[in-house]
Amino acid sequence: MATESWKERAQAKREAILALIPEEWRIKNPPIEKQVDVTGKYIQQYLTEREVEITETTADEIVKHTVTGRWSAEDVAKAFCHRAALAHQLVHCLHEIFFDAAIADAKALDEYYAKHKKPVGPLHGLPVSLKDQFHVKDVETTMGYVGWIGTFEGKIGTGKEKVFESEMVRELRNSGAVLYCKTSVPHTLMIGETVNNIIGLTHNPKNRSLSSGGSSGGEGALIGLRGSPVGFGTDIGGSIRIPAAFNGLYGIRPSVGRMPYEGMANSMDGQNSILSVVGPLATSVPSLRLVMKAILAQKPWLHDPLVHELPWRYEQEREILEITGAIGDASKVGKLAFGVLKTDGVVNPTPPIRRAIDIVVKAMKDLGHEIIEWTPPSHRHLHDEGLKSWVFDAGTDIKGAFSLSGEPYAKQIEFYKQLDKEFIGSEIAATNVKMRQLKKEYLDYWVSTEKSTSTGRPVDAIIAPLAPFPASRFTMYYYYGYSTWVNMLDYTSVVVPVTNVDKAIDKADADYKPVDDRDKNVYESYDPEIYDGAHVSLQLVGRRLQEEQMLAIAEYVGRSIGK
Amino acid sequence: MATESWKERAQAKREAILALIPEEWRIKNPPIEKQVDVTGKYIQQYLTEREVEITETTADEIVKHTVTGRWSAEDVAKAFCHRAALAHQLVHCLHEIFFDAAIADAKALDEYYAKHKKPVGPLHGLPVSLKDQFHVKDVETTMGYVGWIGTFEGKIGTGKEKVFESEMVRELRNSGAVLYCKTSVPHTLMIGETVNNIIGLTHNPKNRSLSSGGSSGGEGALIGLRGSPVGFGTDIGGSIRIPAAFNGLYGIRPSVGRMPYEGMANSMDGQNSILSVVGPLATSVPSLRLVMKAILAQKPWLHDPLVHELPWRYEQEREILEITGAIGDASKVGKLAFGVLKTDGVVNPTPPIRRAIDIVVKAMKDLGHEIIEWTPPSHRHLHDEGLKSWVFDAGTDIKGAFSLSGEPYAKQIEFYKQLDKEFIGSEIAATNVKMRQLKKEYLDYWVSTEKSTSTGRPVDAIIAPLAPFPASRFTMYYYYGYSTWVNMLDYTSVVVPVTNVDKAIDKADADYKPVDDRDKNVYESYDPEIYDGAHVSLQLVGRRLQEEQMLAIAEYVGRSIGK
Repeated sequence: MATESWKERAQAKREAILALIPEEWRIKNPPIEKQVDVTGKYIQQYLTEREVEITETTADEIVKHTVTGRWSAEDVAKAFCHRAALAHQLVHCLHEIFFDAAIADAKALDEYYAKHKKPVGPLHGLPVSLKDQFHVKDVETTMGYVGWIGTFEGKIGTGKEKVFESEMVRELRNSGAVLYCKTSVPHTLMIGETVNNIIGLTHNPKNRSLSSGGSSGGEGALIGLRGSPVGFGTDIGGSIRIPAAFNGLYGIRPSVGRMPYEGMANSMDGQNSILSVVGPLATSVPSLRLVMKAILAQKPWLHDPLVHELPWRYEQEREILEITGAIGDASKVGKLAFGVLKTDGVVNPTPPIRRAIDIVVKAMKDLGHEIIEWTPPSHRHLHDEGLKSWVFDAGTDIKGAFSLSGEPYAKQIEFYKQLDKEFIGSEIAATNVKMRQLKKEYLDYWVSTEKSTSTGRPVDAIIAPLAPFPASRFTMYYYYGYSTWVNMLDYTSVVVPVTNVDKAIDKADADYKPVDDRDKNVYESYDPEIYDGAHVSLQLVGRRLQEEQMLAIAEYVGRSIGK
Repeated sequence: MATESWKERAQAKREAILALIPEEWRIKNPPIEKQVDVTGKYIQQYLTEREVEITETTADEIVKHTVTGRWSAEDVAKAFCHRAALAHQLVHCLHEIFFDAAIADAKALDEYYAKHKKPVGPLHGLPVSLKDQFHVKDVETTMGYVGWIGTFEGKIGTGKEKVFESEMVRELRNSGAVLYCKTSVPHTLMIGETVNNIIGLTHNPKNRSLSSGGSSGGEGALIGLRGSPVGFGTDIGGSIRIPAAFNGLYGIRPSVGRMPYEGMANSMDGQNSILSVVGPLATSVPSLRLVMKAILAQKPWLHDPLVHELPWRYEQEREILEITGAIGDASKVGKLAFGVLKTDGVVNPTPPIRRAIDIVVKAMKDLGHEIIEWTPPSHRHLHDEGLKSWVFDAGTDIKGAFSLSGEPYAKQIEFYKQLDKEFIGSEIAATNVKMRQLKKEYLDYWVSTEKSTSTGRPVDAIIAPLAPFPASRFTMYYYYGYSTWVNMLDYTSVVVPVTNVDKAIDKADADYKPVDDRDKNVYESYDPEIYDGAHVSLQLVGRRLQEEQMLAIAEYVGRSIGK
């Protein structure tokens, strides 16, 4: 083992993953240039009609069938295992496969149902995919590091290897979920694309010449191909929202303390200034709500010391439903007020993103809602200050993980190699003070919009780009500022799919004058020919801990634009 | 100014404070040995009957009179200004006096009431004292540092000097509170006693040979003398609870994110691993509840980015009221389950503390409640790990504050001088990980007590010492572990006064075998002759963010033991 090269270890692991796909589910992967888009009809060709029906049903609809016994958990599990197996072969989105365990669990759920005439919990028989930071018994967690193969987070002899499970895994099982695979991540987790030396690149299924995003890029690709109805990712700088946006999905970045992170693997664990959070990605808002409610029903605050005792707040949700006329009497129907961020002034969004903003703004205006220009305190400062927290340790944690195997760094995170000076206590404290001041300024601005709206309330949500481009081209993710400001402020954000690139409409601006080199790079990375068909998404941002409200708004906006 | 010595500057400030006390309120301060206890009849001799009536009314009762116009805000303000002036002369508890502004504000409140026939808010006309970390317009914030005199947090030319107000000050004013003084703290805030080079020592009014505690020691002494009905302190290692306990008061340490700390001065600002929190001290639980509800009614989460959007939760409170039969029908009456921590195994509590535990345990048992022995994971580890966070910067912040004037360090914090190596990013991260693991272990233990109780719930609260002694003797605060574990875990804790030292009962254990030198020091510091009459208090500890529940339990326990 010690004499094995990292290449051999990576290859063995890569082949071991593939070997877990049954022969009858093996397919040939066509060259990208021959088959750019592998979603829809392309992947359906390998599935039965029944499998397509099951896998193209949203999570919230699936459980309506499974908790009533109309669909067997086994059928549902098998259909998703099959489709996930196909997805992996087409876009490389899985790190761990445990279909056999899933099918056994599903059978046990069916037996439970047959015996007790009731479901185990609200997720009875629902397949849920997990980013490869969750520990699940009987399989590894590599997080894309070759050096983590055969270890527990890089360590051997901990007694936790293939035994320990993350807190949320326990809660998902308690709720009746069926776990069947873990999805790919970029090594370090600090890239908005998904690349590592074990599975290579994870491609965007809608357009395989583009990235599926990252760091929850395997989730994005898998759910984008309907190989999972709902899955959990994590987000420290955009890592749930980027793959959601790039794959035409809904995804929520909850605020810190809402969902249990306890017992998960992580990068730079213990960096406390900007915390990574865990949250779901899915094809519908009700799917996101379903799994969040199920987790909260398990009282995660009794098992994760960092989770706030905040059960699902129906009253927050109800307020939005009443304003939008979904429930309640006519007297309560009113306007929502949106802020619209067209640019952060650092890097300008590319044409399809600008069009998406116009679509959402027009839809909301047409429905009588209010839109004000969002002119907040500098996002540049938020971004610059936030980035510091990711280099407090000068890459010590990351270097340690790479040194276990000697494997090379992906180009995007090679800068960590150059860092050699850790921040000291007083510098970290100064960064924390500065961050708090920026949060205060931003909050003051938000609250001040009460004067600009006619609702008597500050803006309810911000309509904003999540990235300057619809998806990134490999190694061309030049700017993270559109996602990181939300992490810096610890705000709640929900990604909403809006449209798809149409090369006939979304032409490059011939006379665009870039702000600076970075902006120029972003601008030049947009090529309508390459991007044609790609998903175009936006985020709706609420203040801290407004998950219920923001999901309700996102659902309303999504429905209003026909998504 | 630059040529002035720190002594001259300190003396000038000390005299300026005294000079703000009107001639007619000046008294002679008797030598301590002549008058150990200056509470009750002693201080009353300088007050009118009406002033005694007003100042010995609890905050919650005061507002019943002031919000209905029965008592004028001016009368109430003047009575407390007078008594605070006396208190300061007897125990040195004030850093800033602004009686004139208070009386003017009170008159304005009376005019408002006369005109509108309604109060400004729920605290209409209630005097509220503030620890000298709050910024209040027109006065300074020295935090006990000579070098901060005439500055804004040690800096000059910020434009904030005597203009800027802390967020909670704004909210208190909005609620109708009358602000009139700021109370003493130990320089650095990192001592459980109150001593600095400006006002010297703050004495315990019940027993002036003992400390009033710290760091909110001025609050403790002032409220202990009824010079304030309710005041706000802060707590990073016990600083609200210690003065509350030492002065026979109720005091709550809320969890992080419940009350707004925005815009307050602090030590080691930006240290993010164990955050200081702000909370009230008062002579009754309803007083604490009153001010916390008033603050929450101001929606502090819209003005302090670190406050959670958690309005007052009546349902949490109601649950306890129903179980204890205070409201609701008989079917809901039940048992509370308490854990009792008799010792943390590191340092043993002195005899009066042990007796206080027996009193509370017996009272709860007699009322039919359940008591189980609390045998948690090591408190020693909690204490040791927690202490690290207070030296992350190797005292850089503190040294800077002292260097402004060249004043000497109090003996208790001289160790900061010796520190010369700041923690680096990866060390801080490792500490944070360790803390999270300890929190998880503790939470698991707590939840596991569900199996040991007959209530179907884990323990509702822990009955625990807050310090190993009833109050500390000056410079003899040898062990903070009984308060710091709560900060380390971010739990909610309410101090409850239980009894007073009785030298005839609370004798020293002649045959006590100390655990180690520290334990020996604590044991030897207890002298029944010196301690006779001192307040003896305990804390009731709940899990994170259980403020409503813990106040209800504390009120019930206090009432049950006749407090």
